[in-house]
Amino acid sequence: MALIVQKYGGSSVATAERILSVARRIVATKDAGNSVVVVVSAMGKTTDELIRLSQQVAPEPDERELDLLLSTGETVSCTLMAMALRGMGHEAVSLTAGQAGIHTDSFYGRARIKSVDSTRLRRELDAGKIVIVAGFQGITDEFDVTTLGRGGSDTTAVAIAVALKADRCDIFTDVDGVYTADPRLVSQASKLDEISYQDMLEMAQLGSKVMHPRSVELGEAYGVPIMVRSSFNDEPGTLIHEVSRMETRSRVRGIAHDLNVGKIALVGVPDRPGLAASVFQPLAEAGISVDVIVQNVTVEGATDLSFTVARGDLPKAMRIIEPVAQRIAAKQLLSSDNQGKVSVVGAGIQSAPGIAATTFQALYEAGINIEMITTSEIRITCIVDREKVQVAVQKLHATFELD
Amino acid sequence: MALIVQKYGGSSVATAERILSVARRIVATKDAGNSVVVVVSAMGKTTDELIRLSQQVAPEPDERELDLLLSTGETVSCTLMAMALRGMGHEAVSLTAGQAGIHTDSFYGRARIKSVDSTRLRRELDAGKIVIVAGFQGITDEFDVTTLGRGGSDTTAVAIAVALKADRCDIFTDVDGVYTADPRLVSQASKLDEISYQDMLEMAQLGSKVMHPRSVELGEAYGVPIMVRSSFNDEPGTLIHEVSRMETRSRVRGIAHDLNVGKIALVGVPDRPGLAASVFQPLAEAGISVDVIVQNVTVEGATDLSFTVARGDLPKAMRIIEPVAQRIAAKQLLSSDNQGKVSVVGAGIQSAPGIAATTFQALYEAGINIEMITTSEIRITCIVDREKVQVAVQKLHATFELD
Repeated sequence: MALIVQKYGGSSVATAERILSVARRIVATKDAGNSVVVVVSAMGKTTDELIRLSQQVAPEPDERELDLLLSTGETVSCTLMAMALRGMGHEAVSLTAGQAGIHTDSFYGRARIKSVDSTRLRRELDAGKIVIVAGFQGITDEFDVTTLGRGGSDTTAVAIAVALKADRCDIFTDVDGVYTADPRLVSQASKLDEISYQDMLEMAQLGSKVMHPRSVELGEAYGVPIMVRSSFNDEPGTLIHEVSRMETRSRVRGIAHDLNVGKIALVGVPDRPGLAASVFQPLAEAGISVDVIVQNVTVEGATDLSFTVARGDLPKAMRIIEPVAQRIAAKQLLSSDNQGKVSVVGAGIQSAPGIAATTFQALYEAGINIEMITTSEIRITCIVDREKVQVAVQKLHATFELD
Repeated sequence: MALIVQKYGGSSVATAERILSVARRIVATKDAGNSVVVVVSAMGKTTDELIRLSQQVAPEPDERELDLLLSTGETVSCTLMAMALRGMGHEAVSLTAGQAGIHTDSFYGRARIKSVDSTRLRRELDAGKIVIVAGFQGITDEFDVTTLGRGGSDTTAVAIAVALKADRCDIFTDVDGVYTADPRLVSQASKLDEISYQDMLEMAQLGSKVMHPRSVELGEAYGVPIMVRSSFNDEPGTLIHEVSRMETRSRVRGIAHDLNVGKIALVGVPDRPGLAASVFQPLAEAGISVDVIVQNVTVEGATDLSFTVARGDLPKAMRIIEPVAQRIAAKQLLSSDNQGKVSVVGAGIQSAPGIAATTFQALYEAGINIEMITTSEIRITCIVDREKVQVAVQKLHATFELD
């Protein structure tokens, strides 16, 4: 008997009919002789609707209050799933994050899981029940409710799989698996049967919406195999696991992109030790993740420092950076919410000769201006105009023979 | 500085605009130098919508799951209220029942408060915050979420007032106070400036929707004055407190009614010791409250036993009673969901000569058949056809010169 953790996203539980259809899928897994824990997201667009509601009473809702508000979306869907399963004659119980022992720090809106106390999860499983856990939520030491950030239900699922030493974690979503690029942008994109944690992590962090990056990190750290598959059919999906690098090194595995990018530039800043810290420390304290960071070489004692944040964080980031820019005597402070990010991903590509050059040449041929560049061992990322992203992804997909 | 607990019902927080309007009212109370704890119900028809949603996935949703589902309605409204207050520049924090320490038994759907651990409430109040508590919810020793039954937010408010030794508990609702009868049925009904706990309790238990009966019991037990008033104007409401009985004895104070009545009759049951227990014990175990009970005198060793339950409980009650009826060899088992209840209420009226006779005569004159009768020291209750309830209330209101 295997222990399987399944996660169903918002579109898979968007209506009562879909909840019943997912419930039948869960029953099939249970009837095959497995123990099953299911993590669910909020129904459809619930989270967006709750955010809209909150903005009707306060333009900038308090983060603690917002987290408690948003957590209700997942509580609703997990109780409905448990009811549906009980209605089909199966023992099932829904657990909120507090009940399931998902303990986090108190960084509202993007809390991180500190530990999972699996006592109650175990007790319910031992009693033969299908356990439905509200995704996305956590609880602090003070019993305050947190949320894990967009897509956090993936992290909930993998964290529970780790805590219970599950045999597998299935992420059911509205796509068939992980593709070499977004199929909506590139019609020739093809599905991968397997991918390494590292490559998936880069794909996820670089804007492939399939998996929440932290869930992939967690899966890698504890060696939990993760299967990404569609909740609408029975096709095999993409298995994220430890892939031997021998054969896959130095190959472009996919093209990722992200349309949700805001850019901030500090121009003409007198260079001195501690400059970066004085800029990024206040952002970190406010819980704003900085993505791409580029600092130019210093000319005549002054430098330019640019970085990107999630587009939604841009206004808040600017409010924090404005006084900082004055303090560090920056000549100019610029921002733009009109950026996009395109990345070429594959293990070892940085050390493979010519991949960076090929990337830049391809974008040049497509008439696309590269605003910022950053590379890691396994990816090359370019910040470009948002409206050029689709063309860039198509061009790179063809260039690296992924079509 | 007084400590005031305020409770706002669902219609008072039905929209973002109303939440903002209630928030201004709360701020006025706080600015007058008071400490304020606010209990809120779910927005408008949220609870009904959640019940409808649950029935789409399971015709008879599990009670534990349903309670967790329904509790989200109050969590949403309490976070929105806290956000609205913070948006107005006031420190405020929302607390779920678990966070506010509202401990109950595990009778889902109608849990009773066992204790209120006010540690966190006190801490937030001491920090100068306005504390918003989700009404209607409780938490068991196992951290499972319960609900207190329809109207349970009143009980939450009074229980918190008791635990914090509040100076007053204000129940804001969509009516101006307690009337001698439902003003929608009797246009001559008049508002009472004050009423005793006992009279209010009877009015509440007999279907006056103004207050949840258990909240009145609780207020009486601990001597918390309760003010019922409108959230839409500043009119003084009705103060429920200990009223000297000297002057008010033997007077009809009001006419209450309830349209939400289901009737079950066991006909031709062989009478034997323990008969009532064998019928009512299984209902109690299932958490079904039985209201009026009538047992006829035994004729030739057989008796008829009739009782009423809330109309919504009728199908469940019948499923429980059917095997019981067989076991106790009842000749017939009848049920009807087409009943209503009309009650004449006032301290000491049972001992006042003629009030019962006057009641029955008045209903006879109005052409209304009385199906069951039950009396207490302070009320006379008649079960009649539901469609006759309005006429009955009007007739009795006029008969006892309440017009």
